[in-house]
Amino acid sequence: MYIILVYDVGEKRVAKMLRLCRQYLNWIQNSVFEGEITDSKLKELLHKAKKIMDRQEDSIIVFKSREQKWLEKDIIGQEKNKLDTFL
Amino acid sequence: MYIILVYDVGEKRVAKMLRLCRQYLNWIQNSVFEGEITDSKLKELLHKAKKIMDRQEDSIIVFKSREQKWLEKDIIGQEKNKLDTFL
Repeated sequence: MYIILVYDVGEKRVAKMLRLCRQYLNWIQNSVFEGEITDSKLKELLHKAKKIMDRQEDSIIVFKSREQKWLEKDIIGQEKNKLDTFL
Repeated sequence: MYIILVYDVGEKRVAKMLRLCRQYLNWIQNSVFEGEITDSKLKELLHKAKKIMDRQEDSIIVFKSREQKWLEKDIIGQEKNKLDTFL
């Protein structure tokens, strides 16, 4: 499935969360990631993220789309992370 | 259509961008918005956003899904903006 993941975590936890999410997804901007991922890998990612998070303060939102083609993406202005650098 | 909009703009422009996006979409976290919107209203929003942005520095990404039901949403931790406050 294709997902968009956004997190809103305390300053002290941002670096750790960024490093974790980068292992599974493509960073696109601020605290926003996207990418193809399996159910089990997403469970693994979220399991690790919950250990980093302060569940009383922080938040992660995952938007899941069964297929990337169901999600049209438009970028206005600067593309902060040229995805093609990963291809 | 249902969209997720994320922006990454310079500190001086954040407040203006937040106010603009709130007129069209639901704020959910950090610089992330979601909501149902028509083609023409999205064009209107982006037209206004381009006037606020510094196109050399800032970025807006819009993920479009033809229908909300094609996008499953999971929230881990705190829901920063209880959508039901708008219903």
